[in-house]
Amino acid sequence: MAAFRDLISFSDIDLPCWESLYSLCRDIIARPGDYADACRGKLLASLFFEASTRTRFSFQAAMLRLGGSLFGFSNPNDTSIAKGESLADTIRMTASYADAIVMRSPQEGAARAASLYSEVPVINAGDGGHHHPTQTLADLTTIAMTRGSIGGVTVGLCGDLKYGRTVHPLVTALSMFPDVKFRLISPDELKMPDYVMDFIRARGIAYTECASIREAISSLDILYMTRVQRERFPENFPSGAVDKLLSRFTLTADDLRGAKRELMVLHPLPRVGEVERAVDRDPRAKYFEQARYGMYIRMALLLKLTALPREARYPEREGGHSCPNPACITATEKYLPRLVTAEGNCGYCDRKLSG
Amino acid sequence: MAAFRDLISFSDIDLPCWESLYSLCRDIIARPGDYADACRGKLLASLFFEASTRTRFSFQAAMLRLGGSLFGFSNPNDTSIAKGESLADTIRMTASYADAIVMRSPQEGAARAASLYSEVPVINAGDGGHHHPTQTLADLTTIAMTRGSIGGVTVGLCGDLKYGRTVHPLVTALSMFPDVKFRLISPDELKMPDYVMDFIRARGIAYTECASIREAISSLDILYMTRVQRERFPENFPSGAVDKLLSRFTLTADDLRGAKRELMVLHPLPRVGEVERAVDRDPRAKYFEQARYGMYIRMALLLKLTALPREARYPEREGGHSCPNPACITATEKYLPRLVTAEGNCGYCDRKLSG
Amino acid sequence: MAAFRDLISFSDIDLPCWESLYSLCRDIIARPGDYADACRGKLLASLFFEASTRTRFSFQAAMLRLGGSLFGFSNPNDTSIAKGESLADTIRMTASYADAIVMRSPQEGAARAASLYSEVPVINAGDGGHHHPTQTLADLTTIAMTRGSIGGVTVGLCGDLKYGRTVHPLVTALSMFPDVKFRLISPDELKMPDYVMDFIRARGIAYTECASIREAISSLDILYMTRVQRERFPENFPSGAVDKLLSRFTLTADDLRGAKRELMVLHPLPRVGEVERAVDRDPRAKYFEQARYGMYIRMALLLKLTALPREARYPEREGGHSCPNPACITATEKYLPRLVTAEGNCGYCDRKLSG
Repeated sequence: MAAFRDLISFSDIDLPCWESLYSLCRDIIARPGDYADACRGKLLASLFFEASTRTRFSFQAAMLRLGGSLFGFSNPNDTSIAKGESLADTIRMTASYADAIVMRSPQEGAARAASLYSEVPVINAGDGGHHHPTQTLADLTTIAMTRGSIGGVTVGLCGDLKYGRTVHPLVTALSMFPDVKFRLISPDELKMPDYVMDFIRARGIAYTECASIREAISSLDILYMTRVQRERFPENFPSGAVDKLLSRFTLTADDLRGAKRELMVLHPLPRVGEVERAVDRDPRAKYFEQARYGMYIRMALLLKLTALPREARYPEREGGHSCPNPACITATEKYLPRLVTAEGNCGYCDRKLSG
Repeated sequence: MAAFRDLISFSDIDLPCWESLYSLCRDIIARPGDYADACRGKLLASLFFEASTRTRFSFQAAMLRLGGSLFGFSNPNDTSIAKGESLADTIRMTASYADAIVMRSPQEGAARAASLYSEVPVINAGDGGHHHPTQTLADLTTIAMTRGSIGGVTVGLCGDLKYGRTVHPLVTALSMFPDVKFRLISPDELKMPDYVMDFIRARGIAYTECASIREAISSLDILYMTRVQRERFPENFPSGAVDKLLSRFTLTADDLRGAKRELMVLHPLPRVGEVERAVDRDPRAKYFEQARYGMYIRMALLLKLTALPREARYPEREGGHSCPNPACITATEKYLPRLVTAEGNCGYCDRKLSG
Repeated sequence: MAAFRDLISFSDIDLPCWESLYSLCRDIIARPGDYADACRGKLLASLFFEASTRTRFSFQAAMLRLGGSLFGFSNPNDTSIAKGESLADTIRMTASYADAIVMRSPQEGAARAASLYSEVPVINAGDGGHHHPTQTLADLTTIAMTRGSIGGVTVGLCGDLKYGRTVHPLVTALSMFPDVKFRLISPDELKMPDYVMDFIRARGIAYTECASIREAISSLDILYMTRVQRERFPENFPSGAVDKLLSRFTLTADDLRGAKRELMVLHPLPRVGEVERAVDRDPRAKYFEQARYGMYIRMALLLKLTALPREARYPEREGGHSCPNPACITATEKYLPRLVTAEGNCGYCDRKLSG
């Protein structure tokens, strides 16, 4: 493995990478005692420019269970970084103390930007609504550990398929495995975006669209739930109508009566109302196990990446990038070098560059 | 021991439990080096939904001195939990990463609620004005370590005996030991509540009420001071009168002239003005040692509880509980299962249930 | 070594102390693996009454790389200390849990005050604009590691020499070494204060004053940059004039063309605009290495100080101190004992005492 040094988006991971990571993960789960000192003496910097309990806890627990240590901040208010220091300087300073950096930011492309300046591996723990690759790793691990393998499944993706940042990379990730079919279960207002649909069609992946969980449930091996936020609907949409609409994308214990016995219900969490609490008592509810598997695959990832040698990085040229996306990291960090994808998109936030 | 898995209130601890914990604590104090790796590889989640420096430091130091690790938050602002996730979900997620959970909350019964959903032991580090059992453990440990044993003492409880959450369980705790007498030293406005007085009388424990420290001091083996907050007095109470009143419940170096040579002055800390700084120089002032003993007994507690096996928990039924106390955890976590004490009180906050 | 227990100001360190610390630091850099468990079982309390990412990270990384642990707070909002507890009580409590305390405070003299009550060593990580001795240690370490020795150098000190708290102790520190010359490069408004100039003259140290970097650069072995804050200039100063002025104290890649090949550019960081980003690509830019060396010298310091025996401390008398400086710790902690320097200054903040 170690085909990648930084994990910024799930596209950094190909099938051999995944297999190597997952194989290590399985061994950690089977023999955790053998790994209790595997990162002894290693330091992970945990930079949360945006609060996130769940992801932060998972990385902390992962590093500590390997015998490693952490430092960092869990809230931008705890830092003096607001004083006007550039992200590049913050990262160079942090990298000089740490063996790897995990970071979350409300700005899209922040982790990519950080990776250009860091002597040590950078792991993206969420950059705005953009990427969150270790969630996808947690999803795959849960499927593989529960079913034994990932291929040959019908996967229902339910809820907000438009903005939910976990479902898009999950589609890409699952497409690495043979014979995966999708059922896309969402309101019309929150359908999967064109670029994902183009990908599905280009790969020749079988899919159908469904207007409710009830319609799809009996065919599913995996049901991946996401939260639908009321704010996504037009203001003039009558509130009663929204309730009625949402009920079609809310999983109830009753819905599960029509489901396969080996169905797995997944959810990236936190959930609010989209999975009824009564579902928790059903053994097919796997979302809390999913959180625990997320910790184990992060252990595998940290073990691989903190073993890489320190490597000086600094862009040869700075400046000259211009992206129209106000949420892009380049909107505030003006010195960042020009970075354009093969498709001509912004190399930080993937937004189409104007002109 | 291990008669309890969760430590929610001091009533979870009986005499054999205490003896087992204290015996371990003494051994840790005598041979700390033997315990430096006793929790190696164990993780304690430290969830402070309310800021608390002292208690948090004590648990952190305890876990670290056992070679264990911690993760968590020290301030609810550092978390994304405010986003609307239920306490039950937060606890299930946290328990999936940790070997034990210590939590403080401004809501009464929060730790009890958490224990219903946690796969791992839950320790209550304070739930509003309700319980704070490890403070009582620290109190007992200080007495036992300083005097050699706990029985046969006259204990002055001074200050706010009405609202002070440390004195009520201390009375219960001391009643486990033979021949303990109480002197209750408080303003009329802040007398010990009926349910504690009923307990004292039912047990046939000797007590007297006193109107000032000066009146009681010569008879005491232990003087347990608590803070009296000015806000406890009616607004129309003249300020000069409050000052005069408070002076009777403020310990001065002068007061100690009339005290026994082997008196111990205890205080749960922080103190504000109720113990004069000049008292600190008197060897009978034990409140800072009390803090240190608190760390050691927490080490014993953590060592016992983190050794327990993981155990799936989930209430069979949810909902159906109704408590009139707005500070009760059930006021916001509506799904919590019905829980009623033998006395017909709320099983979370111990308040009398209406109807 | 261990001529000092507490490190409050750089004047606590003499040449033998420095040599002992630096020698240990070099050994740690050469053989870090030998020190990975050197502080195993030791606890550092990290009390940041003022947010500071950089210094906090450096101490955390230092302690963790020695195998030690930390607890504390990174932000006064995370504590309940605001409730009205005295600094003395907070420190006594913290010292009862820890093996050493590192603290930052916005109040001058806070670390000195803490040291009077702490059973364990106190390290000052910044007390307002007053002292920050470990920054000076980082500066010396970078020079010594890069050049092999410290003496025989011409040092340019550039920027805000009036308020910059890092340059004053650096002058004192460098004066311990033979044949050090200074070039003082600053606007008239921000010249080195009299007491430092008096020191330089009294020691017979060679110096010249310069009105721009360009004027001085060719003669320098070391250029120590500091930030010039716009707020330092009178409000009626025209903004264009400030820009023009600042440009003379801003280091550009162009300036470096006239510099020696073995020049070292240092900066305590964070920088804002006073060192152009283009300078970073020049191998003479050593400010990020300086951050890393800061971590190593802090490792040496922590290793020495956490090995000292616990020692009860408490002032014999309290009160009676009066200092006119509103930023002095004694302005809020009224009980602090009277402390006066040999020069008749305040023993906490070094300000001239009135009367």
